[in-house]
Amino acid sequence: MLQTPKGTRDILSEEVMIRQEVIEKIKSVFELYGFRPLETPALENWEVLSAKGAGGEEILKETYNFDDKAGRKIGLRYDLTIPLARFVAMNPNLPLPFKRYQIEKVWRYGDITRTRFREFLQADIDIIGSENMITDAEIIACTISAFNTLGFKNFFVRINSRKILSTLMELAGIEKNKVIDVFRIIDKLDKIGFDGIEKELNEKNIPKNSIKKLLNFLKIKGEPEVVIKKIEKIVNRNEGIEELKGIVSYLKKMKVEQKFKIDLSLARGLDYYTGPIYEVFAEEGIGSVAGGGRYDKLIGLFLGREIPATGISFGIERIMEVMRERKMIKTERNKTKVFVVAVNDKVRDKVLEIVQDLRKNNISADFDVKGRSLSKQLEYVNSLRIPYSIIVGEKELKKDSVKLRDMKTGKEKLIKIKELVKLIYKS
Amino acid sequence: MLQTPKGTRDILSEEVMIRQEVIEKIKSVFELYGFRPLETPALENWEVLSAKGAGGEEILKETYNFDDKAGRKIGLRYDLTIPLARFVAMNPNLPLPFKRYQIEKVWRYGDITRTRFREFLQADIDIIGSENMITDAEIIACTISAFNTLGFKNFFVRINSRKILSTLMELAGIEKNKVIDVFRIIDKLDKIGFDGIEKELNEKNIPKNSIKKLLNFLKIKGEPEVVIKKIEKIVNRNEGIEELKGIVSYLKKMKVEQKFKIDLSLARGLDYYTGPIYEVFAEEGIGSVAGGGRYDKLIGLFLGREIPATGISFGIERIMEVMRERKMIKTERNKTKVFVVAVNDKVRDKVLEIVQDLRKNNISADFDVKGRSLSKQLEYVNSLRIPYSIIVGEKELKKDSVKLRDMKTGKEKLIKIKELVKLIYKS
Repeated sequence: MLQTPKGTRDILSEEVMIRQEVIEKIKSVFELYGFRPLETPALENWEVLSAKGAGGEEILKETYNFDDKAGRKIGLRYDLTIPLARFVAMNPNLPLPFKRYQIEKVWRYGDITRTRFREFLQADIDIIGSENMITDAEIIACTISAFNTLGFKNFFVRINSRKILSTLMELAGIEKNKVIDVFRIIDKLDKIGFDGIEKELNEKNIPKNSIKKLLNFLKIKGEPEVVIKKIEKIVNRNEGIEELKGIVSYLKKMKVEQKFKIDLSLARGLDYYTGPIYEVFAEEGIGSVAGGGRYDKLIGLFLGREIPATGISFGIERIMEVMRERKMIKTERNKTKVFVVAVNDKVRDKVLEIVQDLRKNNISADFDVKGRSLSKQLEYVNSLRIPYSIIVGEKELKKDSVKLRDMKTGKEKLIKIKELVKLIYKS
Repeated sequence: MLQTPKGTRDILSEEVMIRQEVIEKIKSVFELYGFRPLETPALENWEVLSAKGAGGEEILKETYNFDDKAGRKIGLRYDLTIPLARFVAMNPNLPLPFKRYQIEKVWRYGDITRTRFREFLQADIDIIGSENMITDAEIIACTISAFNTLGFKNFFVRINSRKILSTLMELAGIEKNKVIDVFRIIDKLDKIGFDGIEKELNEKNIPKNSIKKLLNFLKIKGEPEVVIKKIEKIVNRNEGIEELKGIVSYLKKMKVEQKFKIDLSLARGLDYYTGPIYEVFAEEGIGSVAGGGRYDKLIGLFLGREIPATGISFGIERIMEVMRERKMIKTERNKTKVFVVAVNDKVRDKVLEIVQDLRKNNISADFDVKGRSLSKQLEYVNSLRIPYSIIVGEKELKKDSVKLRDMKTGKEKLIKIKELVKLIYKS
């Protein structure tokens, strides 16, 4: 049976137009915040994708890869962060900080759901070259601004710190070599709940007592100031707490709407995070629609010397799904304004003339290329939901006129041909 | 050594912006002509890509492919036409004619040159469902309009017909089973010249006499009417000639600028073409920047019944290279309008306030996230070629003012903070 590869799909006209609008809005906010575009190849050398300390073993299991004809192993990128780190390492003279955005496809051979595909679109912003927490605040501020611009009401940014999480794990008595596995299990909280996490931690042979302690920690969440006080009571002095305090204080100075909370159960799945991590949570339903964090050691893997970095990735398909569920998207979309209909074969040359004239005046126009009857043409115009048709008939042509038909109401008006352009502009 | 896979590359900020502009212009013309967007996955099942009569054996040698984890063979698409044919076959109830555009990447593991990459961007328009030559004229008219909109002066569309070529080969005494190979050899004319073609035809064991005859035919080119008369003398009645006459007559009725010529040496490399073929030729230098033709049997391979179709593919990288060579692209591009500089640490909070205020007023603004000195900040602004900086100092703040500096001229003006937005809009 004819099909697209599993987990991939065709995207039809209306949805492509909606995607383009969503992308345009996000892009405009990225540019407002001073981010600049970058494109990297879909294919990356395997040694880049699989660098130790990069995405980690789990993600590599989901990475499409193959030997090229020269016997070199290459793969399709699973995110836009590894390629960015590789790019920065290859361009050591780049003026820093480097603020880049990238909106391109990534591929993951993972489980498929209604909103999880194997080929999907990510929109990333990252700032390379500053360890100051103002950088993380800038990423979060830009993110909140982008979701506001898209028209989102119910959403907030969950913030946590890998450093605090590590300390909590130490306090809970979890062995160092199991920490990354535990991060990955906690990351599934939205999907499997606390019970599911308990079960998976059990399977990893984490002691019952440690699990209990850990789960209690993870349940701490709420307004930043309250949570920070609670954590301070547990861990005393901790770099992670200072960092979160810094982010929160910068966000206030930037007068960013308080759409952010600290949530100790946020873990993120990839290995490379080293400090603050964040995630945009669309309340009700789908959950995470964007996620990221600081990765100060990733570029060092490729460059040999560390360059601090932080950033976030927007999941376009998931964002669009929430927008659809919340009816934030007006449905009808049509760039073709008018279809010029020939009443019979004698007027077809005149139709061509009118169509070309409309197009020259920047009016999107189409016409029949199959020599069909009047009624078949109108049926076609309706099926494409084109809002207007111009009906060209011999009788009207004698008066240098045509009929302009509003396809929704069916109303027709006799119009002089030379007044068509002006009239269509108005409507 | 760290690198991108051979034949692929990173695309930096300025070039991405130029690409986006070129794509926007092309897209706007496609939409003016009533084409609608479609996106298909980068990955296609191998049985689609390798269907007999689709792209042909040669292109499959250049197609990235691998077995997915379920043991199914998949590949990266080498064009946008095969995926379109597959899509139409999967959606047999689509209203026809279906006019679609698609601007996406394709991959070919071929020879690399300065303008030939292994990952590149194509912009395609196709009309599915009409065998009328007005359809081909519409494709050519839209193509000429797009190149005009991009600002191209020296270019023309070469038109030929696979049907005429086949007849010429018959007349030259070339065996039927060698015809596709000969098409592919002729297609290299721009690269290897007539001598190269003669050599390759010899290697394919085409008789000397046939080669001579064929090469004489191929040298016929020029204004449509003249060439058509010459061909008619050679082949008498031929469906291909009638088709070309039809296209030329429709283009005249559409009042399309006469930027098209008939050229019997045009062959196109892919197997699936069945009738008229066309190519946009940028005179001087790079040669072909767009190519396509009619493929009436391709959809039938997937659907079981034939649906006529025709279309063209624009090579974005090659178009941009010609635009660069011809200095059609203004160089400097910067979406960030202003950088807000802190004279010392005491004013950094005020900088944040001003930056956020500019952004709220839709002015793209950036600031220092590294706590650097005044001179280091200005150096950075220059390296990013941001046109303006706002210099925030204690003395000026006392008068609710800042300095606005034109980075090109170095001129500074003292400005009230509340007048900043208005003033920057003006400049």
